[in-house]
Amino acid sequence: MESWILKILILAAGLLALGFMGYLSASILREGAGNEKMKEIYLAIRQGAMAFLRREFTTLAIFTVVIFIVLAIFIEPQPLVAVAYLAGTITSALAGWLGMNIATQANTRTANAAISSWAKALKIAFSSGAVMGFSVVGLGLLGLAIIAFIWNDTHVWLGFAFGASSVALFLRAGGGIFTKSADVGADLVGKIEQGIPEDDPRNPAVIADNVGDNVGDVAGMGSDLYESYVSAIAASMVLGVIALGTVQGMFLPLLLAAIGIVVSIIGVLSVRPRDIEANFEKQVARAHATMNTGVYVSNILMIIASFFLIRSYIGDLGLFWALISGLLCGFLIGLATEYFTSAERGPVKKIAKAAESGAAVTIIEGMATGMMSTVIPIILVVVATILAYIFGGLLGIAIAATGMLINLGMLLAMDCYGPIADNSAGIAEMAGLGPEVRQRCEALDAVGNTTAALGKGFAIASAALASLAWLATYFAVANISVASLTNVDVIAGVMIGGMLTFIFSALAMRGVSDGAFAIVNEVRRQFREIKGLMTGEAKPDYVSCVDIATKRALKSMLLPGILVLVVPLALGFTLGPESVAGLLIGALVTGFLMAVMMANAGGAWDNAKKYIEAGNLGGKGSDAHKAAVIGDTVGDPFKDTAGPSLNILIKLVGKVAVIFGPVFVMLIPL
Amino acid sequence: MESWILKILILAAGLLALGFMGYLSASILREGAGNEKMKEIYLAIRQGAMAFLRREFTTLAIFTVVIFIVLAIFIEPQPLVAVAYLAGTITSALAGWLGMNIATQANTRTANAAISSWAKALKIAFSSGAVMGFSVVGLGLLGLAIIAFIWNDTHVWLGFAFGASSVALFLRAGGGIFTKSADVGADLVGKIEQGIPEDDPRNPAVIADNVGDNVGDVAGMGSDLYESYVSAIAASMVLGVIALGTVQGMFLPLLLAAIGIVVSIIGVLSVRPRDIEANFEKQVARAHATMNTGVYVSNILMIIASFFLIRSYIGDLGLFWALISGLLCGFLIGLATEYFTSAERGPVKKIAKAAESGAAVTIIEGMATGMMSTVIPIILVVVATILAYIFGGLLGIAIAATGMLINLGMLLAMDCYGPIADNSAGIAEMAGLGPEVRQRCEALDAVGNTTAALGKGFAIASAALASLAWLATYFAVANISVASLTNVDVIAGVMIGGMLTFIFSALAMRGVSDGAFAIVNEVRRQFREIKGLMTGEAKPDYVSCVDIATKRALKSMLLPGILVLVVPLALGFTLGPESVAGLLIGALVTGFLMAVMMANAGGAWDNAKKYIEAGNLGGKGSDAHKAAVIGDTVGDPFKDTAGPSLNILIKLVGKVAVIFGPVFVMLIPL
Repeated sequence: MESWILKILILAAGLLALGFMGYLSASILREGAGNEKMKEIYLAIRQGAMAFLRREFTTLAIFTVVIFIVLAIFIEPQPLVAVAYLAGTITSALAGWLGMNIATQANTRTANAAISSWAKALKIAFSSGAVMGFSVVGLGLLGLAIIAFIWNDTHVWLGFAFGASSVALFLRAGGGIFTKSADVGADLVGKIEQGIPEDDPRNPAVIADNVGDNVGDVAGMGSDLYESYVSAIAASMVLGVIALGTVQGMFLPLLLAAIGIVVSIIGVLSVRPRDIEANFEKQVARAHATMNTGVYVSNILMIIASFFLIRSYIGDLGLFWALISGLLCGFLIGLATEYFTSAERGPVKKIAKAAESGAAVTIIEGMATGMMSTVIPIILVVVATILAYIFGGLLGIAIAATGMLINLGMLLAMDCYGPIADNSAGIAEMAGLGPEVRQRCEALDAVGNTTAALGKGFAIASAALASLAWLATYFAVANISVASLTNVDVIAGVMIGGMLTFIFSALAMRGVSDGAFAIVNEVRRQFREIKGLMTGEAKPDYVSCVDIATKRALKSMLLPGILVLVVPLALGFTLGPESVAGLLIGALVTGFLMAVMMANAGGAWDNAKKYIEAGNLGGKGSDAHKAAVIGDTVGDPFKDTAGPSLNILIKLVGKVAVIFGPVFVMLIPL
Repeated sequence: MESWILKILILAAGLLALGFMGYLSASILREGAGNEKMKEIYLAIRQGAMAFLRREFTTLAIFTVVIFIVLAIFIEPQPLVAVAYLAGTITSALAGWLGMNIATQANTRTANAAISSWAKALKIAFSSGAVMGFSVVGLGLLGLAIIAFIWNDTHVWLGFAFGASSVALFLRAGGGIFTKSADVGADLVGKIEQGIPEDDPRNPAVIADNVGDNVGDVAGMGSDLYESYVSAIAASMVLGVIALGTVQGMFLPLLLAAIGIVVSIIGVLSVRPRDIEANFEKQVARAHATMNTGVYVSNILMIIASFFLIRSYIGDLGLFWALISGLLCGFLIGLATEYFTSAERGPVKKIAKAAESGAAVTIIEGMATGMMSTVIPIILVVVATILAYIFGGLLGIAIAATGMLINLGMLLAMDCYGPIADNSAGIAEMAGLGPEVRQRCEALDAVGNTTAALGKGFAIASAALASLAWLATYFAVANISVASLTNVDVIAGVMIGGMLTFIFSALAMRGVSDGAFAIVNEVRRQFREIKGLMTGEAKPDYVSCVDIATKRALKSMLLPGILVLVVPLALGFTLGPESVAGLLIGALVTGFLMAVMMANAGGAWDNAKKYIEAGNLGGKGSDAHKAAVIGDTVGDPFKDTAGPSLNILIKLVGKVAVIFGPVFVMLIPL
C-alpha cells in the first residue's frame, strides 16, 4: 500500500479516538448533576482538582522550559528533539486535563444516576473512564504520528516520548503524594481522633481526599499509561527502523496502534450494563462481567487483526508471536494480582486472620504477601522477554510491550472507572442520599477496587517491558555492543540504579507522611478554631486542605525529580555509557520488584480490612478491624504513591539515558 | 622466606587463636553462676539452646550428606571438593557450638558478677563474645590453611568455603526464625494480652525468647561472619593465585589473616573496664569507650602491620590500598548505621515523633528511614569496589573484603557481647535481683544494642564485598570473559536473582509470623490449662515452647534452603553460565539494599521505642509508646530474621555458582 494511504489511516484512527472521546463526553455532560447539595460538593472537588492541576502545570512549565533549553543546546538534531519533547509534554498534559475534567463532572452524575438506575450509573462511570482512555490513545497516536511523518529522524521520535515522561513524573508521583497525604491525614483525624465516618462533610480534609482520587488515580494513572503507550510505540519504531528498514519499521507500530483504537472502541461499545435486582454481591459480579466483556471482545479482535496485519505487511509471523507474549504476560499478571489482592482468596484471608493477633503481625504478614506476590509477575516478564526476543529479537521485546498496551483505550476505561465510582460513593455519602443509592454506588466502588488492582499490575508490567525496550534502544543509540558484568563500572551502575529505587520510594513515602502530618495539623486547627464545625452548624475550610496537600506534593517532588534526571547523567559522564546500562537494569529490577510488592501488599491490606468490615472475624469495631485499619493505612502510600511512582522511575531513567546517550558516547572516549 | 616457615607461622596463629579462646573460656567458667534461682534459669536457657543446636545439626547432617554425595560425584577434583566441603561444615558448626556453649554459661555469670562489680560483668560478657570471635577466626584460618597446604587446588579451597555457607544458612536463617518467633510470640501474649512485663518467668515463652538470643544472635551472627571471613580469604587466595602466582597468591591472604589474629588478641586484651559510679548514662558511655579502645588499637596495628607485610612480601602497595578501602568502607558504614539507628539522632527521633500520630505513620516513617539509610552504604560499597579494583584489579576487590574482616576476632567479640548482656539483663529480671544490679545489666544491654546495630551493618557490608569477590571468582572458574547486559539471558538472570531476594525475605518473615502464631497458641493454652500459673504457684512448661519454635524454624528453612541451591543450578543449566552471573548481581543488589533497609528500619524502630520509654513524648504506656511497640514488633523479623538471612543468600548463591560453574561450562557449549 502507498505510504500516504497508511499515513491517512493512522491519522484517521487518532482522530476517531478523539471524536469518540468527544461523543462520550457530550453524552456524560447531558446527564443531570443532581441536587444543590451534590452540585456544591462536586464543584468543590472539581475546583480543588483543577487548582491542583493548574499549580502542577505551572511548576511543570518551568521544568519543561529548562529541559527544552538543555535539549535545544546539546541534543542533535537541534532543536528538533527539543520541539518534539515540548509536543510530548503538551499532548500528555492535555490528555490528563481532558480525562480529569470529565472525571470530575462524572462523579456527581454517576451518583445522581444511581438514584434511578444502577445500570445507568455504571454506564456513566465507565464512559468517563473511557474518555481518559481515548484522550490518551488519540493524542498519543496523533502526536507521535505527526512528529514521525514530519521528521524522519528516530531521535526526534524519542524526544516526544521523553516529553510524556516529564508529565507522568509530575502527575503520577506528585498526584500520588497529594492523594495519600489527604487520605491518610483525613483518616487520622476524622476516623480516629474525632470518630466521624469516612467522607463525612464535617471533615475539612474530605474534599482534598476526593480531589486526590481524581488527581492521583485518574490523571496519574492516565499519564503513567500515556507514557508507557508512547514509549512502547516509539521504541518499537526506532528498533523497527533498525530491524525492518525505514518504512515498515516506522509504520508497523503505528498501524498496530491504529487497529488498537478501533478494537478498543468496539470493546467499549460492547459494555452494555442492564439493571438487575438490588443485591450487592450480584451487582458487583454483574458489573465485573459487563466490563470484562469489553476486554475480551477487544482482545480477541486485536489478536485476529494483528495476525492479518503482520502477515500481510511483514510476511513473517515472528513479531505476531512477540506481540502475543506481551499480551498474555499482561493478562496473566492481572490474574496473579487478583489472586494476591482479592478478598475471596487465601492471601488476603490470611492477612485478615493475622489481624486477630494485632497490627504488627498484620504488617508482617502483608509484607510477606507482597514480597511473595512478586514471584509470578517477574517470571512472566522474564518468560515474555525471552520469548519475544526469540521470536523477534530486540524489536520483539518492544513489540511485546506494545502488545500489552495496544488495547489501552479499553483497559484505561476500566482502570479510571474505579476512582470515579469511588468518588460517586463519597458524594452519595456526603449528600446524604438514601441507603439504596449508596449501596449501588458502593457496589460500583467495590468492582473499582478490583479493576484498580488489575490496572496497577498492568501498569507495572507494561512499564517493565517498555523499559526493557528502551534499554535495547539505548544500546542502539549509544552504540553499545557490550556492557559486561565483568566490568566494575557496570556493576557500580547496577548498584546505583538499585539505590535510586530506594531513594525514590523513601522520598515518596516521606512526602506522604510529612503531607499527612501537615493535613492533620490543619484539620485539628479547624476543629479547634471553627465554632460549630462538629455540630454541622459551621462549614469547614476545604480549600486550605487542598492547598496544603498541593504545596507539599510539589515540594516533595523536587528532589526525586532532580535525582532521576541527574544521577544517570552524572554516571554517564563519570563512569561512562556502559555503567548507565547497568543503572537501567538495576533500577528496573529493584523498581519492578518493589512496585509489585508495594502495590500488592497495599491492595491486600485494603481488602483484608474490607473483608473484616463485611462482618468476618468480628467485623467493624473489633480489635482485628483496628489492626486491619492500620495495615490499610500503611498500604495507602505503598500502593498509591511509592509503588506507582516507581513505574515512572524505571521508564524515566531509560529515557534520560536514551536522549543523552549519544552525548556520553561523544564525550567519553573509553 | 621459605614456604615452610610461612606455613608454620600461619598454623601457629590459628592455634594461638584457639589457645586464647581456651584461656578466655576457662577464666569465664571460673566465675560463679549465681544463686539457685539463677542457675535454674540459666540451665533452662542452656538446655533449650543446646536442644535447638542438636536438632539443627541433625537436619544439617542430612543436608550435608546429600550435598557431599552430589559434590563427590559431579565436582572435580573428586572427591576432594566434597571432603573440603565437609571440613568447612564441621569447623563452622564447631565454631558455632563452642561460641554458644560459652555464651549460655556467661549470661548468668555476667548477671552474678553485676551484683558486686559492673566492670567485672562487662569483662565477662565481652570475654565470652571474644570466645565466639576467636573460635571463628582460629578454626577458619586453621581449616582453610590445612586444606590449602595439603591440596594445592583452588577448587578444593572454594569447597571449604561452601561448607561454611551451609552451616550459616541453617544457623542464621533458622536461628533468626526461631528467635523472632519466640520473641514476637512471647510479647504478643505476655505483654499485650496478660499485661505481664518482658522476661517475666510466668510467661511460658520467656525461656524460648532467651534461647533465641543465643541461637539467633550469637551462633547465627558467628556462623554468618565465619562464612564471610572464610569466603573473603578463599576468594583472595584463588584470585591471588591468578594475579600473583601460586606461592604469593596463596600465602598473602593467609598471612594477613594470621596478623589479624595477633592484632585482635592485642585489641581484646586492651579492653580493660574499670568500675565507675552507678549512673546509667555514664556506664553506657564508659562501656562503649572501653570496647572502642580495643577496636581502635587493633585497627591501627593492623594497618601498620599489613603495610609492612604487603610492602615486603609483594613489593607493590596497590593491595595495601585495596585493603584500606575495605577497612574504611566497613568503618564508615558502621558510622552511617549508627546515625540512622541511634536514639540520639534525627531519624529515630522523627520516628518517635511519628508515633504520636499512631502506628501506621510509625511504620511508614520507619520504612522511609530504612530505605533512605541504604544510600550511604551502597555508595560506600561502590566507591570501595571501584578503588579496590583500580588499586588491585579483581584481587583488589577480594582483598578489600578481607580487609573488612581481618580484625574479626575483635569485632565479633563486640557483636556477640550484645546478646550476652541482653540475656544477663533477662536473668537479672527473672531471678529478681535488686534494681541496682538490673540497672547495671541494662546499661550493658543498652551498649549491646548499638554494637549489635554496628555488627549488622558490618555483616551486610562484608557480605556484599565478599559476594563481589566471589562473582570475580566465578568469572575465573567458569571462564567467562563477558556477561553482557545486551544478552537477554543475562537480564533474565538479574531479574531471577532479584526475585530470590524477595522470596527469601517473604519466607523468612512468614516463618516468623507462623512461628509466633504457634507460640501464641501454646502460651494461651498453658495459661488456660495450667492452674496457678498467673499467681506464680505453678511453673510453666518452657520446653514445649522451645520445641515448637525449633520445629517451626527448621520447617520454614526448607524451601528457602532448597531454592538458594536449586535456582542458580536450574538457571545455569537452562540459560547458561552468563545468566548465572546476572543472577549473582541481581541477588546482590536487591539483597544488599533490602538487608540494609530491614536492619536499619528494625534498629530505628527498636530505639524509637526505647527513646519513648526513656520518658520522652509521654513515656511508657502513652499512645505514642503503643504505636512504637507495634513498630518495634514489625522491626523484629526485619532486623533479626529476614535482613540477616539475606547476607547468607547473597553469599550462598555465589558459592553455588562457583562450585558448579565448571559443570555449566562443560555442559552448555553456547
